[in-house]
Amino acid sequence: MDGDGAKQPSVSGLLDPTTQTNQKKNPKRRCCCPKSALLADNVLPDINGIVQLPHPESIFGKLHPSFYQVAVYLAAYLGVGTICFYLLRHQMKGKKTNGVLDAVYFCIVTMATVGYGDLVPSSVLTKLLACAFVFTGMALVGLILSKAADYLVEKQGILLVKALLIHQEVCPTEILKKLGTNKVRYKCVMVLLLLFVLIIVGTIFVAFVEEMNVVDSFYCVCSTITTLGYGDKSFSTQAGRVFAVFWILTSTICSAQFFLYVAELNTERKRRSLVKWVLTRRITKVELQEADIDRDGFVGKSEFILHKLKEMGKISPEDISLILEKFQDLDVDQTGTLSASEIVAPAQSSEPGK
Amino acid sequence: MDGDGAKQPSVSGLLDPTTQTNQKKNPKRRCCCPKSALLADNVLPDINGIVQLPHPESIFGKLHPSFYQVAVYLAAYLGVGTICFYLLRHQMKGKKTNGVLDAVYFCIVTMATVGYGDLVPSSVLTKLLACAFVFTGMALVGLILSKAADYLVEKQGILLVKALLIHQEVCPTEILKKLGTNKVRYKCVMVLLLLFVLIIVGTIFVAFVEEMNVVDSFYCVCSTITTLGYGDKSFSTQAGRVFAVFWILTSTICSAQFFLYVAELNTERKRRSLVKWVLTRRITKVELQEADIDRDGFVGKSEFILHKLKEMGKISPEDISLILEKFQDLDVDQTGTLSASEIVAPAQSSEPGK
Repeated sequence: MDGDGAKQPSVSGLLDPTTQTNQKKNPKRRCCCPKSALLADNVLPDINGIVQLPHPESIFGKLHPSFYQVAVYLAAYLGVGTICFYLLRHQMKGKKTNGVLDAVYFCIVTMATVGYGDLVPSSVLTKLLACAFVFTGMALVGLILSKAADYLVEKQGILLVKALLIHQEVCPTEILKKLGTNKVRYKCVMVLLLLFVLIIVGTIFVAFVEEMNVVDSFYCVCSTITTLGYGDKSFSTQAGRVFAVFWILTSTICSAQFFLYVAELNTERKRRSLVKWVLTRRITKVELQEADIDRDGFVGKSEFILHKLKEMGKISPEDISLILEKFQDLDVDQTGTLSASEIVAPAQSSEPGK
Repeated sequence: MDGDGAKQPSVSGLLDPTTQTNQKKNPKRRCCCPKSALLADNVLPDINGIVQLPHPESIFGKLHPSFYQVAVYLAAYLGVGTICFYLLRHQMKGKKTNGVLDAVYFCIVTMATVGYGDLVPSSVLTKLLACAFVFTGMALVGLILSKAADYLVEKQGILLVKALLIHQEVCPTEILKKLGTNKVRYKCVMVLLLLFVLIIVGTIFVAFVEEMNVVDSFYCVCSTITTLGYGDKSFSTQAGRVFAVFWILTSTICSAQFFLYVAELNTERKRRSLVKWVLTRRITKVELQEADIDRDGFVGKSEFILHKLKEMGKISPEDISLILEKFQDLDVDQTGTLSASEIVAPAQSSEPGK
């Protein structure tokens, strides 16, 4: 929610690209950017019968990762898992410490798909239960990766950028703009840093508590964060397993998130090179003709933008035709343009357009 | 490559949304859609000094998943891995069969992060080598998931849609349109089907060759495709390991791809509900004013489209301002529109706009 609130102003601040370019080319016009004739022509009171539908912010809020939802699912998963495997602890074989702790540890090791094999199900029931728990656990990890993890990292990313720019005099919009273009990179760095910390902490802890040499400890850590889990080196002490419960979940999610970010970074890099290419590329006459949506013989600013966006692959012709249909519905007087008078009378607009 | 070729016509066929809507409203105008005045006004020969830059198709081709690149990487990874672990086979402990086979099997089990632990490194060198191989392997699996897997599934998806629609009289464009809107769903179904087949084949094979009962066999299969790999049940025979080499790689990638598609499906579902909401939402006067990019007092078709696209979150204000800058460069006569005469004289266009 907080993140949304912070993002919104930057978007609305940049909503008018014309003003932006005007600012660059003619700084004097900055504060007196020409008002559209729309409002001047139709000075109607604000109460004009339009039912106020929810603002985009609230829809984004609804779509935004619900951190608490993930926490509840995780608690439910671990709760049910612990109860099941605690009750069925006699149908498990391997290195055992404390009943409840072993059950939680087994759940985490299964959920993160580490699967050391130091504690394994030995009956048909526990085996099938383990199968069910690994699939559910994978889905849950997916949910964490898609929602909570990214949300947390993004928040940390904003803090990082703010900290980096604190001594430079930049306005909040500038920070958010900088964050926008390099968002994935910042997130990547954040996760990589965290991953390093987790590897170092893990190696030191395992070496001391599980009494391994440094190579074995590092090998155990690597085999865990990659969810490999050969199981020849694992957590066999009570203290080790308490640590493992928290450390395994954090580190496996962290490493998976890192790979996701690298993939995202790669996609973005490609997209950027495509954008660059599309922008430097000269438009041909045939394309100019194609770009002329209203068929008036000229390509206006917004037609040019749409054409380039299509070339960049950001939008598809389907997107355009969907919105165009809506436009035809709204354009009551069939002039090919919308004026304020058309939007204030939406009641009759559904039929005549069709 | 083939996929690109097939996609291109659909895009160019739909490139003109105006023609499309015209077709709906006035079927008679179908074949004689009004030609833009651009070409009629400026009947210039094609050889007009414009250096022909690569067509979008070729850039997409360049960006398109290179299937061969992945195959080469995979071969290199398995080649190097096999040689290393074959030479160091005396520094490995566990169930051994054939030297080379065990090395390949170990590579695959490590790369897919299954890590049964039935064959583990026992020296410092092999342990560190295993760490290096699991990280490289994860990156390689990521590459396969991002490139080859999706490419193959998409091709199969097209075949599936074609097969489903073979008895209905639909034109190829219709098929591709249908595929476009439900692409992720088809891919999801394809992967799920393949996953079921792999689970069944795996369970039957393991039961027979490794001489397990059905539950143990299913448990082994589940613990493998989820990359859990407890290791209490694994491939210990020569025949089993030959099968495992192919089956593990396919099934783990398949299950990971399935999770990726489910995530994609989820994102798309959300995006669609947002699109629907944006389209049904009434435009306010303030927004109408914001949408008026060229500040002429009216919102044209393309301005309306851009406004709605921004609301849908498909494009950002930065995208628009980037392209607008390019437009100002091209718009030599500063009329706010582009005509064919402006694009044929691009040599002088870089300075006057600025």
